[in-house]
Amino acid sequence: MSDYKKIDAYLENNLNQSLEELAVYVAQPSISAQNLGLKECAQIVKSMLEKRGFTAQVMDTDGAPVVFGERKGKSDKTLLIYNHYDVQPPEPLELWESPPFEPVIRDGKMFGRGVSDDKSHLTSRLFALDAIMDSEGDLPCNVKFIVEGEEETSSVHLHDFIKHNLDILKADACVWEFGGVDHREVPMQYLGLRGICYVELSVESLGTDVHSGLGGSILPNAAWRLIWALNSLKGPDERIRIPGFYDNIVPPSARDRELMDALPDVADEYKKRYGAKGFIKGLTGGTDLKMEEVFVPTCTVCGLTSGYQGPGSKTVQPAFASAKVDFRLVVGQKPEDIVAKLRLHLDREGFGDVKIDFLGGEPAARTDPDDAFIKVVVDTAEEVFESKMEIVPMIGGSGPNYPFVHDLGLPVATMGLGYPDTKAHAPNENIRLDLYLKHARHMARVVKEFAK
Amino acid sequence: MSDYKKIDAYLENNLNQSLEELAVYVAQPSISAQNLGLKECAQIVKSMLEKRGFTAQVMDTDGAPVVFGERKGKSDKTLLIYNHYDVQPPEPLELWESPPFEPVIRDGKMFGRGVSDDKSHLTSRLFALDAIMDSEGDLPCNVKFIVEGEEETSSVHLHDFIKHNLDILKADACVWEFGGVDHREVPMQYLGLRGICYVELSVESLGTDVHSGLGGSILPNAAWRLIWALNSLKGPDERIRIPGFYDNIVPPSARDRELMDALPDVADEYKKRYGAKGFIKGLTGGTDLKMEEVFVPTCTVCGLTSGYQGPGSKTVQPAFASAKVDFRLVVGQKPEDIVAKLRLHLDREGFGDVKIDFLGGEPAARTDPDDAFIKVVVDTAEEVFESKMEIVPMIGGSGPNYPFVHDLGLPVATMGLGYPDTKAHAPNENIRLDLYLKHARHMARVVKEFAK
Repeated sequence: MSDYKKIDAYLENNLNQSLEELAVYVAQPSISAQNLGLKECAQIVKSMLEKRGFTAQVMDTDGAPVVFGERKGKSDKTLLIYNHYDVQPPEPLELWESPPFEPVIRDGKMFGRGVSDDKSHLTSRLFALDAIMDSEGDLPCNVKFIVEGEEETSSVHLHDFIKHNLDILKADACVWEFGGVDHREVPMQYLGLRGICYVELSVESLGTDVHSGLGGSILPNAAWRLIWALNSLKGPDERIRIPGFYDNIVPPSARDRELMDALPDVADEYKKRYGAKGFIKGLTGGTDLKMEEVFVPTCTVCGLTSGYQGPGSKTVQPAFASAKVDFRLVVGQKPEDIVAKLRLHLDREGFGDVKIDFLGGEPAARTDPDDAFIKVVVDTAEEVFESKMEIVPMIGGSGPNYPFVHDLGLPVATMGLGYPDTKAHAPNENIRLDLYLKHARHMARVVKEFAK
Repeated sequence: MSDYKKIDAYLENNLNQSLEELAVYVAQPSISAQNLGLKECAQIVKSMLEKRGFTAQVMDTDGAPVVFGERKGKSDKTLLIYNHYDVQPPEPLELWESPPFEPVIRDGKMFGRGVSDDKSHLTSRLFALDAIMDSEGDLPCNVKFIVEGEEETSSVHLHDFIKHNLDILKADACVWEFGGVDHREVPMQYLGLRGICYVELSVESLGTDVHSGLGGSILPNAAWRLIWALNSLKGPDERIRIPGFYDNIVPPSARDRELMDALPDVADEYKKRYGAKGFIKGLTGGTDLKMEEVFVPTCTVCGLTSGYQGPGSKTVQPAFASAKVDFRLVVGQKPEDIVAKLRLHLDREGFGDVKIDFLGGEPAARTDPDDAFIKVVVDTAEEVFESKMEIVPMIGGSGPNYPFVHDLGLPVATMGLGYPDTKAHAPNENIRLDLYLKHARHMARVVKEFAK
């Protein structure tokens, strides 16, 4: 790959300039959870795109605006790059070693809120395009950017935005917002995200709390109603009891198991990291544990609240109780369908008094590990990272990849500059500058090889 | 009862003086939950007793001190009067129409924290003794006062105090700290209190919270563990599943049912007051509802807490969960025995990971409705309240009457100046001055008739 000499030299020589652009971008707070600085940040993204000759526009949604940009290239092929300009809230502030919105470089790292998730991913990708244009005068293919502002608050308006803009978003492949190396410095290719269906279940059993000396004997208790309703969803065997919950599931293939088998064992690391004595469902480790982590749907109680929760005792029976319940879905399951089945189940089990609030959802989506574009991303990684990229067919988390895979029909590849100590969502979020450069070099190769 | 003319006249003429003494007592904050002003308040009680020629002492416990006072009278019989000088916290302060520790009189009522529960009960009883001594120069029998400072925090040291001071507390009958009239202005005689066993159940499933995209699939969830453990205690049929829970229970007698039958129906009032659509266990009203309210033990979840409880969604699986659980006990059950059975049950059901913290307990205790002292209290009420006192053999709430009934072997009568709008434990706590006078008149009669 000797044709990357000039590009690599450009990247080496202009790194500081790109980091300066990143620092300006990070210095602009853009906290979607607090609706802070989003419009200002969208304008910065638009300017960065226009500076490279992109036609860019800030497009309204019912939430934060989406920045869309495109630039034609030599070939007819189109690469769509997905990023987000919003960041997590920086709190707790006292744990930051330097102010979150005053990015600084120390020890070969840049620190700041959003520097890793996801602002450096955008600027390093633009930096890669700069290098190509410097070397070749033009882009080798069409490149489109979709940069949203609500990723940290569940991308609630992104699916609708994509549905309404299928034409302008038309492409042949998609690069996902994140990626990176694991603790062995091995670059990872994550090819699927589970879906999610997040609900709040609540019960109001009385008009007011009541002394437990009276209520406990004769009046309905919201906390008990909620406990029994939740118990009807899943018992200690971990099997979800909602009729039809497991219908239509697309099971993992032999190729999936083969790919999972090739990944390192996680049992000891998880036990240590999470202070776990063991795993549920009789799991001990190996491929079975890895498969369970990503290919099986779940029902997780993330929060419970009712009545008195302070120190000591209070003898009052609560009139209200609620639970946050997170279902992770696999391919074949749909959030709306799960909510409908949950309602039916609760009604049939005598829990018509349990209210369901649907707080958000997205189906699972996957990209074929043997897709040609994935092969490009995997093959080009090896030279840059000096290690073969490993393929993870599915991860346990969720994200808005479904409309890219299903509405736009794209293969979606993950690549990036994340690493285990990057502290996304936490104080002292940071990136490693060596990985910033590597991601730009990798990106330049992906664009050029994809264009062929 | 013409021999009460002089006493009644004294009470009419000296009411303001007694109310001034009450105002000084109420103005002293004495919040046991916050360990605020307790020693100062105990000294005020001691002074009030000494002013009447009582030998009084402030006696240490492992918590707030107990004030004990005694004064000899003409007969050998001894009446023990139980009160408490501590009060509930006054919060929320903004809902008070006048400051909680600046007692004021308006509209025939005195307002202030603790004025009803329980400070006016002590001063009106002292006022009654003043009237007797003014009329007769001496008390007709021995009178002892036990005034504790932890009633609002479950009287945790009272049982031990009584066990260690059986000699000085020796008596023939006991007057309880509270009592009063119902919404019909009928004075009520409450003859028993259920016991209580209050525990906190908690689970720590991991060393740290974990992203629900990972934890939900393979790691133990504290919230689920707690839900399943609680569900093992009681199902929607309301039957408590702890083996042996219902052992040794002394069932209500035919006389109990006869007394409950004579009390007014509560179904409509409860539905209205608590905004209830109906009752549990298929109850609809009548004597069955009244019996269930007081003669059946319960298991009530008073609080639940785990993970995220704010608005919207958070996809984190909690490592910790806890519940406040309140068992109301009937005669024959012992709190320590219930805790032991609970532990055994949880272990047998596979919930060895659920920790039990015992937060306090007391067995149930009752006084015979046909006891001679009860007859004195009931008979003397009629002239004062112009209505026959009604006997309630048992109430659903709990209190520290067990050591009085069982360690000291006393009949315990309730009498007082409570009324439905007295707002004990709430903002704008108040007493009606007409009931203050009536309670003093009733008390004078009880002391004199008991002494005969």
